[in-house]
Parts: sequence; C-alpha cells; structure tokens
Amino acid sequence: MKFISVGEILVRFSPQNYEKIVQASAFNVNYGGAEVNVAVSLVNLGVDTSVFSVVPDNSLADAALKYLKSNGIDTRHIKRSGERLGTYYLEEGVSIRPSEVIYDRKHSSICEVDPDSIDYEQLLQGFDWLHISGITPALSENCRILTERILKSAKALGITVSFDPNFRGKLWSFDTSRDVLSEYMQYVDILVGIEPIHLKDENGKELKDGLSMNPDINTMDTIFRKLNEKYKFKAIARTVREVHSSTNNSLKAYLHIGDKTYESKKINFDIVDRVGGGDAFTAGLIYGLMKNFEPQKTIDFAIASSAIKHTIRGDANLSSKKQIDSFMTRGFEIKR
Amino acid sequence: MKFISVGEILVRFSPQNYEKIVQASAFNVNYGGAEVNVAVSLVNLGVDTSVFSVVPDNSLADAALKYLKSNGIDTRHIKRSGERLGTYYLEEGVSIRPSEVIYDRKHSSICEVDPDSIDYEQLLQGFDWLHISGITPALSENCRILTERILKSAKALGITVSFDPNFRGKLWSFDTSRDVLSEYMQYVDILVGIEPIHLKDENGKELKDGLSMNPDINTMDTIFRKLNEKYKFKAIARTVREVHSSTNNSLKAYLHIGDKTYESKKINFDIVDRVGGGDAFTAGLIYGLMKNFEPQKTIDFAIASSAIKHTIRGDANLSSKKQIDSFMTRGFEIKR
Amino acid sequence: MKFISVGEILVRFSPQNYEKIVQASAFNVNYGGAEVNVAVSLVNLGVDTSVFSVVPDNSLADAALKYLKSNGIDTRHIKRSGERLGTYYLEEGVSIRPSEVIYDRKHSSICEVDPDSIDYEQLLQGFDWLHISGITPALSENCRILTERILKSAKALGITVSFDPNFRGKLWSFDTSRDVLSEYMQYVDILVGIEPIHLKDENGKELKDGLSMNPDINTMDTIFRKLNEKYKFKAIARTVREVHSSTNNSLKAYLHIGDKTYESKKINFDIVDRVGGGDAFTAGLIYGLMKNFEPQKTIDFAIASSAIKHTIRGDANLSSKKQIDSFMTRGFEIKR
Amino acid sequence: MKFISVGEILVRFSPQNYEKIVQASAFNVNYGGAEVNVAVSLVNLGVDTSVFSVVPDNSLADAALKYLKSNGIDTRHIKRSGERLGTYYLEEGVSIRPSEVIYDRKHSSICEVDPDSIDYEQLLQGFDWLHISGITPALSENCRILTERILKSAKALGITVSFDPNFRGKLWSFDTSRDVLSEYMQYVDILVGIEPIHLKDENGKELKDGLSMNPDINTMDTIFRKLNEKYKFKAIARTVREVHSSTNNSLKAYLHIGDKTYESKKINFDIVDRVGGGDAFTAGLIYGLMKNFEPQKTIDFAIASSAIKHTIRGDANLSSKKQIDSFMTRGFEIKR
Amino acid sequence: MKFISVGEILVRFSPQNYEKIVQASAFNVNYGGAEVNVAVSLVNLGVDTSVFSVVPDNSLADAALKYLKSNGIDTRHIKRSGERLGTYYLEEGVSIRPSEVIYDRKHSSICEVDPDSIDYEQLLQGFDWLHISGITPALSENCRILTERILKSAKALGITVSFDPNFRGKLWSFDTSRDVLSEYMQYVDILVGIEPIHLKDENGKELKDGLSMNPDINTMDTIFRKLNEKYKFKAIARTVREVHSSTNNSLKAYLHIGDKTYESKKINFDIVDRVGGGDAFTAGLIYGLMKNFEPQKTIDFAIASSAIKHTIRGDANLSSKKQIDSFMTRGFEIKR
Amino acid sequence: MKFISVGEILVRFSPQNYEKIVQASAFNVNYGGAEVNVAVSLVNLGVDTSVFSVVPDNSLADAALKYLKSNGIDTRHIKRSGERLGTYYLEEGVSIRPSEVIYDRKHSSICEVDPDSIDYEQLLQGFDWLHISGITPALSENCRILTERILKSAKALGITVSFDPNFRGKLWSFDTSRDVLSEYMQYVDILVGIEPIHLKDENGKELKDGLSMNPDINTMDTIFRKLNEKYKFKAIARTVREVHSSTNNSLKAYLHIGDKTYESKKINFDIVDRVGGGDAFTAGLIYGLMKNFEPQKTIDFAIASSAIKHTIRGDANLSSKKQIDSFMTRGFEIKR
Repeated sequence: MKFISVGEILVRFSPQNYEKIVQASAFNVNYGGAEVNVAVSLVNLGVDTSVFSVVPDNSLADAALKYLKSNGIDTRHIKRSGERLGTYYLEEGVSIRPSEVIYDRKHSSICEVDPDSIDYEQLLQGFDWLHISGITPALSENCRILTERILKSAKALGITVSFDPNFRGKLWSFDTSRDVLSEYMQYVDILVGIEPIHLKDENGKELKDGLSMNPDINTMDTIFRKLNEKYKFKAIARTVREVHSSTNNSLKAYLHIGDKTYESKKINFDIVDRVGGGDAFTAGLIYGLMKNFEPQKTIDFAIASSAIKHTIRGDANLSSKKQIDSFMTRGFEIKR
Repeated sequence: MKFISVGEILVRFSPQNYEKIVQASAFNVNYGGAEVNVAVSLVNLGVDTSVFSVVPDNSLADAALKYLKSNGIDTRHIKRSGERLGTYYLEEGVSIRPSEVIYDRKHSSICEVDPDSIDYEQLLQGFDWLHISGITPALSENCRILTERILKSAKALGITVSFDPNFRGKLWSFDTSRDVLSEYMQYVDILVGIEPIHLKDENGKELKDGLSMNPDINTMDTIFRKLNEKYKFKAIARTVREVHSSTNNSLKAYLHIGDKTYESKKINFDIVDRVGGGDAFTAGLIYGLMKNFEPQKTIDFAIASSAIKHTIRGDANLSSKKQIDSFMTRGFEIKR
Repeated sequence: MKFISVGEILVRFSPQNYEKIVQASAFNVNYGGAEVNVAVSLVNLGVDTSVFSVVPDNSLADAALKYLKSNGIDTRHIKRSGERLGTYYLEEGVSIRPSEVIYDRKHSSICEVDPDSIDYEQLLQGFDWLHISGITPALSENCRILTERILKSAKALGITVSFDPNFRGKLWSFDTSRDVLSEYMQYVDILVGIEPIHLKDENGKELKDGLSMNPDINTMDTIFRKLNEKYKFKAIARTVREVHSSTNNSLKAYLHIGDKTYESKKINFDIVDRVGGGDAFTAGLIYGLMKNFEPQKTIDFAIASSAIKHTIRGDANLSSKKQIDSFMTRGFEIKR
Repeated sequence: MKFISVGEILVRFSPQNYEKIVQASAFNVNYGGAEVNVAVSLVNLGVDTSVFSVVPDNSLADAALKYLKSNGIDTRHIKRSGERLGTYYLEEGVSIRPSEVIYDRKHSSICEVDPDSIDYEQLLQGFDWLHISGITPALSENCRILTERILKSAKALGITVSFDPNFRGKLWSFDTSRDVLSEYMQYVDILVGIEPIHLKDENGKELKDGLSMNPDINTMDTIFRKLNEKYKFKAIARTVREVHSSTNNSLKAYLHIGDKTYESKKINFDIVDRVGGGDAFTAGLIYGLMKNFEPQKTIDFAIASSAIKHTIRGDANLSSKKQIDSFMTRGFEIKR
Repeated sequence: MKFISVGEILVRFSPQNYEKIVQASAFNVNYGGAEVNVAVSLVNLGVDTSVFSVVPDNSLADAALKYLKSNGIDTRHIKRSGERLGTYYLEEGVSIRPSEVIYDRKHSSICEVDPDSIDYEQLLQGFDWLHISGITPALSENCRILTERILKSAKALGITVSFDPNFRGKLWSFDTSRDVLSEYMQYVDILVGIEPIHLKDENGKELKDGLSMNPDINTMDTIFRKLNEKYKFKAIARTVREVHSSTNNSLKAYLHIGDKTYESKKINFDIVDRVGGGDAFTAGLIYGLMKNFEPQKTIDFAIASSAIKHTIRGDANLSSKKQIDSFMTRGFEIKR
Repeated sequence: MKFISVGEILVRFSPQNYEKIVQASAFNVNYGGAEVNVAVSLVNLGVDTSVFSVVPDNSLADAALKYLKSNGIDTRHIKRSGERLGTYYLEEGVSIRPSEVIYDRKHSSICEVDPDSIDYEQLLQGFDWLHISGITPALSENCRILTERILKSAKALGITVSFDPNFRGKLWSFDTSRDVLSEYMQYVDILVGIEPIHLKDENGKELKDGLSMNPDINTMDTIFRKLNEKYKFKAIARTVREVHSSTNNSLKAYLHIGDKTYESKKINFDIVDRVGGGDAFTAGLIYGLMKNFEPQKTIDFAIASSAIKHTIRGDANLSSKKQIDSFMTRGFEIKR
C-alpha cells in the first residue's frame, strides 16, 4: 500500500518551558501541518509514505523537508515555488491557562501555487491511498481548486480517499466551509470527524446542530447512519475529547463501519505536546483500515495512537506499531 | 486612576528544572517583591502604575528597572542609593518536595535608606491609590519609619490605601509584626489578608487565634465584621489555599464589602511558578474595586487572576483583562 | 558506623525534556548504579560511607568519581582497571508513555575484573555494614565470584550485610538468578525485596509464585515468616508500587522485624526522576536500622526517603535527615 | 532634544550556537529594524526617544513593544493595524562561513498601512530630530508615500532630519532606489552613508561609481564636497568596513562637517552579533551632533559605538555614554 | 554516478561550551564515522549516495539512521545485527588546550559482524564508486576480512575505489596498519592521504619516513610519482594542516593526477567543529573527480569544502555546491 | 606535603553567552575566591589540600563545599557561622568590550567571623604549607586580625607561607593596603606579585612606583634583589600580562630564587574564562617549589598552568600534571 497526503507544511514557533510569547527570547521550531502529521505518524508505523506540498526554495524549507526525510517520507513530489512557508506561533497552554495561536500563514507557497501547474493524475500515479483535509481549501482560492482537482483525480484513479474536515475558524466561516466541504464528500471513502458537513433532514434542518460534544453511542450511531445514507462512506470515525485542563485530557472515539458503530476505550493522559493529536488518530485509523484490523481493534489502535502522541514532542506520533501494541497491553514501568 | 506601590525590589535566584540548590550550575533570575508584583499585575490589566523603591546604582538594578519598564511601569520615582539589591534563593518545590528559601536581603538599599531623604507628600502627588505591605516595615527600622510616614501622607492626601500584612517569619516575629501592623490599620482602606492584625475580645483574647485555615463563610463573616467594627475598612479580603502538593493547589477567597461577605469560586490548578500568586490576587482585587465591579465579580476576578498567575513564569500575572475574562467564561482548547 | 557498598558505577544517558532517543541532540549524563545510589543517599543522611567498584583510568570515570566525592563518599577503595564504564540510555517515560532502556554495559571494567586481584578481607577492614545487590552477580562470571567472596568475607568479619536482589531481566533469567541469589542468603542479615529468592513448600512449590503485586499485610506476614524460617534474617522489607502513570506512582512498604510485620504509610507523588527510587528506600531502611529507630518509624522513614527521591533529579536522594523528618511532619508551602 | 525614528519593527530569528538553519531546533528571537536600532542605541545614551511604526494587534507585536519599552522608548505613537510583523531568518556566519538571510517581510503591517490614515504633522509635534532610512520606501508603495510625507512634514516643522540610505538589494534594485532616495535629499540634514544617491558630473556620469570600498580621506573629501554642492547637507558621514572574516572586522569612518573631512580611528574587533553595527554608528553620530561634540570626537564616538555594538547580543548598542567613553580611553581588564 | 561508502557509524559524545568531561552534566550527541562523513558531505553536494554499515536494532541506532536519512542518504543496505554502536567521548579543545578523546568502540555491531553473512557483489550492484578507509580493518579481524572482500568485489565489478588510510593509533600500530593497508593498494584508484603505506627504496628504506609535515610541492611530486610507480593510482591527494591552536588552523592540499602535481590555495580559519574536516576534503575531492573538474579546481574545491566544514557543527559538510562555489569567489558579508 | 589555604569562598554569578547583565534571564554560578582557586588548582595536581574558610549554614554554602569536595579538597576545617556567602556579578568581557564586576560581598560570614573563635595553632596542625592573599585583610577588621594571627601561627609552627598581595581597589585603597600588607612580609616565604608592598629607597621614595607594566628581566632582577634585601623571601615571582583584547591575552612571568631571576616563555591564548588565571599561576608555582623543580621549569610550569586555566570554565585549573606537561611539550591536535 502506497500512501500520499496533500497539504501545507507549516512552521510552528513555540516559546520554551511554557513561557508566554511576550516572555520568550527563543522559540522552539517544529515542522508539521495536519496532513503532514498524518504522513509522519503513518511512516513510523511502517507504511510507504509520500507527501505532496508546495514550499519555497530556501533553507527553512530545506529544514522542513529534512524533517520529513528523516522520518523516511518520500519528498520527491514536493514542488518548490513561491516565497514563504506558512508559519504560526503557539503559546502552549498549561494547567488552567489556555493555549493561544497567532497565524501567519497567508501568502505561503501553497496558497499562491498555480493549480494549473500541477498534473494531478501523474502526481497520484502508483498510490493506493490519498489523505487530504479541510484546511487546504480554506487557505486560498488556488488551494480550493487544487483540492477539488486532486479529489476528482483520485476518484478517477480508484484511489482510496480519507478526508478530515478539520474546521479552522481563523481561516474561514463555518457556513462557507460546510458548503465547500460537503461538495467533496462524493469523492471521499473515509470521513474522519463529522463537522462541518451538511446533514439536513427533509425540512432542511441540520441534524447535527446542537449535538452534544460528548454524545453516547446510540446518538452517534444514528448520525453515522444518516451521513452514510447521504454520502455513502466506507467508514466514518470521530473522536470525543474531554478537556480537564490544558495539560490533561481524556479521549475516546467512535467508528462506524460495516453498518455498525464501535466505541473505543477512553484514555486519560497528561499532555506533553497537544499538536497533532487528532492527526495521530487519523493515522492510526488509516493504518487499522489498511491492515484490515477488526473494527474494535482499529478504533482502539487509533485512540491509543492519538493518546501516545500527546506525550511526544513535535507534531507527529513517532511510535512504532510495536510500541502502540505494547501500550495497549501493558503498563508504564521501566524495563531493565 | 493612578496607582503607586511602595516596597523592595527583590532579585530571585532559582535553580532550573526543579534542581536542588546543591545541584545547580545556573540560576534563573527574576525580579519582583510583593508590592512590585502587585504593580506589574495591575499595569498588565491596563492601569496607570508607578513603583517607588530604593535601588543601588549598578547594572543589576538597571536590569530590575528594565523589567518594570518593559511592563510599562513608570520608574521615575525610584530612588538610587545604597549598595545592594536584596536577593533570595528559591529552591522550587515539586510534587511532595517543598520549596526552600534562603534570604539574603539584609543591608539592601531600601533597608538602609534615610527616611528623611524622601518627601512623602511630593512623592504621592497625583496618585489615587497606594498599595503597601507588611514586608516593608519588617525590613529595617528605617523602613518602618518610611512605611508609617507614607501611610500618614496618603491619608492626609485622601489617597485610597490597600494593605497586605504579608507576614514573613524569617524577618520578624508574629507578635512584633502584629503590634506594628495593627497600628497602621487606621490609615488603611482595603485590607488584603487578616493576619497578623490584633482582634481582641473584651477579655483581651485574640479572636482569630485558632481560626481554621479553611474557614466557612459564616465564620469569616463574623471575623470580618469584628475587624470592621474595630478598624473601619472599606473592604477586607482573604484567600484560602489548599495545598495538595507543591505543584497542585486550590484557591478560593472571601470578600467583605458593603456589610456583606462574598465567597469566590474555588479553582484547582497545577503550578508553574508559585511566587506572586497572592500578589496577583491583590492586583485583581484592586482592579475590581477600582472599576467598581459587582462584589461577586470582584472576588471571582481576583481569584482567577491569582490562579492564572500560578501558570505563568516570573513573579507577576502578565494576563490582560481580556485573558482573565476569557478564562472566567471558557475552557482550555487551542483556538486555531 | 562505617558503611561500604559494592557494585558497578553506571553512566546514564537520557534525552532532555522527555524527548525520545530518536529526537535527542543532547543527553543528560548521570552517574549511578543501584549500590552507588544507596551509598549516595546514605552519605547525605550523615553516614560515613565508602564505595568499592572498578572503573577505567579515563576522564569519564574521573567524572563519576567526582560525583561520588562531591557527596562526601570515600572513593579510595575504588580500583582502576579495565577499559570502559558501563552505560545505558534511558528514554524517560511520561504520562501514559513508558520509559525505555537500552543497556550498553557489557565488557565494563567491573565485568572484566580479575576476582583474584582483590583482597576482600583487607577491603572490608574497618567497616560495620556492607550493602550489595543482585545486579553484580548478574554482570559476569567474574562478578559472581567477586560477590560470593565478598559476602563470605563480610560474614567472616562479622559485618552486617544488607542485600537487594534487584532482578534485571535484561541481564539474566529469573530462574538462574533465583538459584544464584538464594545461595547468598546464608550471608545476608537484611533482605530488601523478596524476589527472586527460593521459598518452596514441602512439595517443592514456590510459595511466592502468583503472589499479588499488592499483597495485604497478612499475606506479607506469612511470607516473611516463612522466609525467616528458612534464611534467618534480622529484617526483611519490601516496597509495593502502584503505577498510575509513568509520572505518577504510589508507594508503601512492609517491614518484618522482631517477629512482627509493619506497614508504612502510602504516599502518592508525581515523578521528576524515577531512577534510584528503590535505592533511596534501601538507604532509608539501612539508616533506620543503624540508628535503631522504632520499626514503624524505620519503615515510614524509608518510604518517605524513597518518595522524595522521585522528586529529585539524578540517581540518589540528596535530602538530609532533617528534610525527610520535615516532610514526614509538615506540608509543602514555601517558608519565607 | 526629543528624537523620533520611523521604520519597520522586524523580528529576527537566528539559529543558536552558529548552527545552520537546516540544523536548528530552536531560534533565538530579536526585535529590531534599522531605525528601531538607532532609537534603542540612542535611548541608552540618555536621549528622550520615540519610535513610530505600524504593528499588528497580537502578542508577538506586544513582545516587540515590550523590548522597546524595556529600553525606555516611548511607544505611544506606534499604530496597531494590519496582520503581521515582518520577519527574517539570519543564519549567522562564523569564521570563513558567510551569514545567510531569508527575508519574510512582505505583507507586514507597515507595508500595508494606509498612508492617509496618519496625521504626519501631529505625529511629529514636539520632536526635534527625525531619523529615517532608505529601507522604508523600499517596503511598499504605501511606505514610499509615508516616507515622503513624513520627510516633507519634518521639513515644514523645522525638525532636523537624518537619513541612512541603507540599500537592500533583496527589496529593490540599485537604480530604482537611487532614483527614489535622491529625491529625498532635499529634506535631509544629515546623510549617513553615501549610496545609493545620484552624484553625476556634467556629463551625467555617476562620480561615485567605481569608488574604492576603502577610499582614502582625500577621495572622500572630494566626494563629500560634491555631494554637498548638490544637496546642501549639514553633515555627511560614512563607515568603511574591512571584512577579515564573518567574525572579525575592522571599522573606521569619515565625517564631513563645517567644510572639512575627519577620519576616525580604525578599530579591529571580534564579532558577537553583527546586526545593528551600522545603526549603532548612526546613533553615535546623531548623539555627537546633538551634543555638539567636536567633529573629531563625534566621529570617534560614533565608530566606538559601532565597534562595541558588535560585541553585544541583539540589534542595538546597550552601552551607556560612560561605557563608550571608558572604552575610548582605557583597556579591557576586569576591575575588581 | 551512484556512490556507496562502507564503515562504522559512530556516536560522538561531547561536552557543551568547551567544558571538560569532568565538568559536563550533558553531552551533545553527533552521529558520524569517517566513511559516513564522506557520504553525508557528498549527498549534500547532490550525489546519489548510500552507506553500508552494521548497527544494532535499538533506538540509538534508529537515531543514527534518522540522521543519515535526513540528509537524503539511502540506508536500505545497512545491516542490523550485534549489540552496540561504537561510541567515543570528545573533549573539544579550544585555544591552547588540546582535544582529548576516549574511545569506547570495541564490541560494536560492525566489529562483531560475521563477514560471511554479507553478499558483497550483490551489495555493490549498481554502484559506480566505493569509498572505504583504513579505520574499518583496524576495528576487528572480522572487519579486516570484510574490507578485503569488499575491495576485491569492487575491483571485480569495475567500480572506482577511493581509499583514505586514516591511521588511528588508538586502534592499531603504525607498522601493522602499514602492512595491512599496503596490501589493499592494488584495489585502489584514488588514494587520499599517503600514510601508512609502504614506499621503500631498493634498499628497503621507507622513503616517506622523516618527510616534513609541511612538504613543498617538489618533494610531494617526487613522493607521488614513486607511489604511482609502485601502486598505479588514478589520483593521489593529501592535505597539509598547520595547527596554530585548537581553534585556529590553516589547510592546503596537493593533488597528483595526469602525471602532474597541483597545490591548492591555503586557507586559514577559526574552528567551530574540527571533526570530519578531513572527510569533507575527501568528499570534495571525490566530487571534483566525479564531475571531471580541472585538477586545480578539483583540489581548490576539496580544500574549500574541508575549510568550510570546520565552521559547521556536526561531523559533515552540509554545504551545497553553490555555497562552496560562492565561498570560493566571494567574501563573508551578510546579503540582505 | 600537606597544603592549606585560607580565604573567602565567593559565589560568582555571570550572564551566559556574553550577555550583558541587563539582558540576562539566568546566571551561571561558580564558586571560588582567590585562595580557594589556588587550592583547587593544586589538588588537581595531586597535592593533599585543605581550605579554611567561614560559610553560613545553608544550602548555597553546601553547594560551594560540594564543589570543593568534588575536587578532593578536605573541607573539615571550614567553620559554619554567619549569614551569607559573599557574591559578585561578573559581566564577562569579549573582544573589545571589557568585563564589569559588581561586588556584593560585604557582611559575609568570613567578614563577620569573631577572630577569637578560632584556635589558629590547632587549625594549622599537620600542615606544611599555608597560602593566603591580600584580599582577606581587605574584607573587614575581623579578617585583618584573623590574617595576622594565622600568619604568626604559621611562622611559629615553621610552616612555609606563600602570599599573593592581590590588590582589590574596590575593597580598600592602595596606600592602606600597602601599609597593612608590608607588615605581613616578615611572615612570608614566597611572594607572588610585588604590589602593593613598600619598597622605599633611603630617601623614602617608593622604588616600584612608575615601574613599567612590562618590565625587562634586568629591571625585575633589580627590584627582586631590593625586595629580598628588605624582606628576605625564599622566592619572589610575578606575571606580566599583555591584554590584546578581553578574550586574547599573552602571559609571561619572572621568578627570583637562589639569587637569580628567571623569565618564563611567553604564551598567547584566547580566553574562555579569565577568572582564576593568576591563582592557577600561583598553584603552578607552589607545585614547582614543593616538588623542587629546576627554577626555569618551575616558572614555565606556572605560566603554562595559568595559560591553560584561561581555557577552562570555572575559577580553577582542573588540569592534571600530565596534561600541563603534555601542553609544555606538544601541540593541539586530537589524538585518536
């Protein structure tokens, strides 16, 4: 199975030791982006993985690619054009203090890429699985065209498509994103997260509006079934996060597949690095589906993958399959 | 409203990463002091703020002033004389290990200042609010004279006076401090913390002796009323801290104002930096009183201000009013 | 009372800030080893302490000895021969992520020491207490001979011997270690930890097999009595650890002495550094026995010593007796 | 004398310890910009100093302002609008390896400011000296309008204007910049650096083209006189830098004033931080002119100010007048 | 052209900030080894590059491979067996203080590899150039067999072979190494460094014994010709290093090719990281030969490559061809 | 030979990476003091060494003693009384920027020690060599009494006394120090440094006044002879330092012994840490005299010891005799 994800490579700057941005004399730098994070998590599980993105021709972009290559990702498809990498500043929250984000990602290379400059079918040649998220069409009109074309090409080539809507309120409105993303659902096989996707009843009322942030399995089963009626997915999954503090959360997830809904274990954990937690879930889910795990094992593996990610610095889950399996079966003691 | 606080600027040296002092090859340096911390927390809420202190003419004192100026504090009234800044070493506690403090603050510039060298009424000209604490008179005989004179001058000028008794057992005895500070109460409008202040019944028995560290609202109401009978404050407040470990505490507070006692929410939090937690409460309280918040909102704002401070490195709460408000109404998730 | 411990001095390399080994660009270095850790913890309690070990003649070994000397340990008995210090890499676990250890301790100076090159009786001359652990005989055939000879010499000289079986599955099998270590029990006065030591019933069934990891006091009392019947110890102790996460554990302990079993308080704590936690327990226990504390105070002191160690960086408990006493009687607030 | 400088506040990211950008896991952050650097250097000499700039309303901009305020700069005139601070990445050169710069300063708040939104005469009210550089008009069309208007307003108000052409080849071409900047010369009193400014002979040939990078005093005198004939400056100065390596340079300077050219001492130095070296020269020059130093003392003070800056981390010379004077008269030994 | 180098991957531990080993509380970690360094330097010049080595199956080895992969090296041929990576401790010299090295590389995976377990011809399939050094046969008897077999296979396959004798006095004696390495010369096309290789006159006297460390071109020409008479190389090169201090050296080099000897420019530089300086020379030389540069350009490129390496942290030259070309033609100023 | 030095243990705080004090957010901490530095340098050469000092009973003092013990110094004679360790802040100079020192050493434990509380003869029992410096009597009246009594006791016990006048202008005036120290010369055997000691001609003119900072050997020989005539030393030595920049110096030294003056080699070096350079010279000199080296070897060893110290972080020369010998005979290359 050859996997490719498509999206923006972002530079993350974060103050050290829980300093506030106004206190920082240095920033840690991490390279990521939602789709990249899925790829890095997946390559560490042993999957043959590529990333498509657009980055400028400078040494900061070289550093980003170096990070991808160090994990074993094939970076040959990455296009070099434009003038800047998108960046953002993350003041990491701790205890009762929330994280704060400053986006500085406009005018990035991928935002300004000419969608006609890419041969989508050639790009996807030889891949079995495409992952893409709702962030890319939110970046710019160019990116919206790019997203649509790549989804259509994947469909045409018979490639399995997973899609994470990943709503970003700092980039576009909920209503716009719902309209745009819902159109993409016809090309999508695996949906990861259920918002913002239209799901109206016969009266045009959005069925998911007002849904609890922590729904029970029956509620989710109903929603999943209606989504499936409308969009015909192979699988739908979503996580449920309980935020006890900025540095302590609990996670569980639901997976609907084969006409049945499964609920994962719930895991509570202290957080070392919150970024990429959802992407590690997606990677775990894709892995389970790729390897035809039993549904219950798939969703448990995905939630374990996500939980462990929160204890690892950087944007991606660097754990091997063996480490995740070991976490799923044993405790925390030093082995020596 | 123009605010001034008066007190010692202290240098804090603390080992990094929870090392013990005997392990440290470097110390983090922070500038603070109880009254300075109130000022820095208050200026970050948007109040026009000055500090009066006495520091030597060397570059360590320059660094301390630089910290004040960076926060927007007016440092023009600070007197430069004497030979040293007071310093202390803080081995920060963690988990079940307590913090340890070594004071090295004798003979500091403010300890040795000539109280006759200051024109108190001129110094206070133009200010609306004076904050002072019980640490200053504990420092030296000179400082005791200075404290008394500044309180009298404030009274004469009709300036609102807030006072935090802030007992320091390493500087003086409980009995001496109670005798000295109680004399100051005639000049005080807002009392923050209720010890060590005399409150005797008709038989000369101290009513607060043996009071629970975690009293209920009725007990506190009784005490507050008796304090008010004796000293006629505009408001009295105190915090109640539950110490679950060196790095996890809970806080709530009581406020007595307008003949009624209010109890804040209780907040539990992990601690990043314990120093200045009480001073951030005082700043929040003063802010609420300055802005004529409702009493319940005032005490909730003050306790939120204190709780958030515990998650911020350094001695002061660098949060804006907007950030504290946001904490009071929402959770901890990254916004992006 | 003059104390000596015998064992390997190990170099610990660990990534900083909970990075994984694959992420690290620098490693913190700590010097330790189970028996060394007991010695360092004990010297900080005020006991006259020596270490016997074998290290090469290079500056890394000089650094290790510098660490011992800085704590006041007499290093004059340490033999310099061979070519390397044993090392290991510790990826410190955090939250739900477990620690991982890579051993690189083969061919170390102590592994390859000629056991005939040491005059055991002369080495032990003047000491009152010898501590040794089950790690040393696991290192090499040479070390097994050395261990046996030193135990015999101690017995001959009437020195009190404490022994911590300290099973290491990466060094030898449970069965081999049980056979070897059980033979040593005839020389041992104080046993710290009860595995892997033979304790068969009349049918040859191992009585401790299948014992709960968290046994109640009655069960432990029975086991202790049977161990005593067989091996005639002066005292036996063991800890019980509950692992809530890699960075939060609870500990309690049992002590059997004078025909009675005592149970310590249970202490819950967040972990700063997990290594040497058991060794700090042993040191606290030895100290209590040396000073003839009451049994209940002995086991409480030992468990407090262990708990505090988990909050201190490095391999040993640097707390003074006064600090442990203070922890046993008071809370966590800053004193100032 | 009240001083104001106008220009962009830039964020500098540089890898630590001479790492290359592709190696960096953290970047040091410094706030600066040519005109800001002049202001910070000048305020440290004791001059009453303001900065005008345009920055977004986020905490990274707060951090930049905090830096200015910590030095005592009045930041009240700074306008908050737009979306980003300009940034750049500096891979600091060392020994024979050159520095490399990646600019990411397009679309910054000042680039996109509406020049009509500023009341230039009101802004400049009360100031005696305006400093501006050729970088600002290179940023955007808006900035070009802003620059011209502010120069005209300064002229109208009789404010002394100093101007540093500061050619930046990454922002515009030499020819364009020469055309634009030469037009500004009518408003300029003090010119710091002589390129890119038109200086044609009667045949239209540029007299400065082909000028040695290290001209002698006679050559410079001729050039200065011709510039003065054309543009009527009060003073012209320029530095001459010999680059022995990325971390060792020599500097001297020429000053033309009162119809005479002066040459400073030449100073050789190792470099700690190269950025802002020229701006510290400008600040020293402005200070000497403000204080009516003798011309020779002025140019020596300016070159000393620049040389010392190269030994100070960050973008500006934090030295006091006393420290620069002391450097000009004595050596390097510790005083104790 | 496809390149492969064969050798040990070493872990380097070095104290930070020029501390001595006895002072260090942390060590920087770098991955390298002479042949690996050549490969990393070469891949950064754009050459398709592989490494063959033997490493254990643990995360420290994963980290080493991650470093190779991040640079774009193909690591698929690396064999995972054995128990440890070779390590060494480098106390970096500075000024007049020399560096000190502690080797801990015995018993490493490559030392203990079974030379029969490798199919040499299959391994080398598809490669055009093999690089190997005299360190590998010095490691163990197994490695000596491996070295000989791989050289023979390369010869059989018509692969160009470059060889760096790289004498290591801590691994074997000069005499033994000279005997062993001289035997390899029949398989070698490019010799980099001339010791320890037999070159006897008719009387059996070693002609190179007593040769100046800084020979003139005529002397070198004579030696090169005699070496060529005996061993028939395509090219021979050597560097000449003048050590002014631990942190300041000069380098030049000689190249003999096409019956003529060429002398490079001499470059003086301050040193940031001394390790891999010679390997960067080798990589530059190989690159020039691969690309058929003129001999003078080849040797100048190689010496520039080496000189720049000394200013880059880590074991390899991360400079691109463009950066080396730029260094060869221009100076050190910041471009902005 | 058993050695003891007597003096103050000072805490040095210095900003990291050549930051100025006003920029520092952390300070490196080093423990030293002139006499302590001599002791630490000497113990590293293999001499049995003790220190006498007075320190408070707190953990900062514990850390200082830990540093001494780690080097192998016997700290049993150190008295614990008083309230503080003397401290100072060192802004380390670099390139053309000079170092700056802020002393905060008044009221330290040794300053306030009761000179009657010490039994001087008992303290010195068993020692062969006492070293003391002119800093101690400069600290306080108590210390002046202590210094005099210890010198007299040493004389009475026949102990060899070395004395370094070590004038500190921040502690006392040149004239006072000259009067006080000259009185001590009757007890001194080895004088290290010649100021401030009276040396008047028959007319009462001070012969050393106006002496060049870099005198030739004949001048020094004359001065040494006259000093000897007056004070009858066993040996006199002094260093001559050329300060090329804050981070590059040259050193040589003169030694007068056995009626002859010897001049050492001159060594130029870059500086890593300037503090303790003179004390390392003194230690080297004492070592040479203790071991009865030839005079020329003694002075060369002393100057090499001092030069190498400048490349080592901290206050003392941690080099072994072997390392200094090696430096005296060889160059700077890595041995591997």
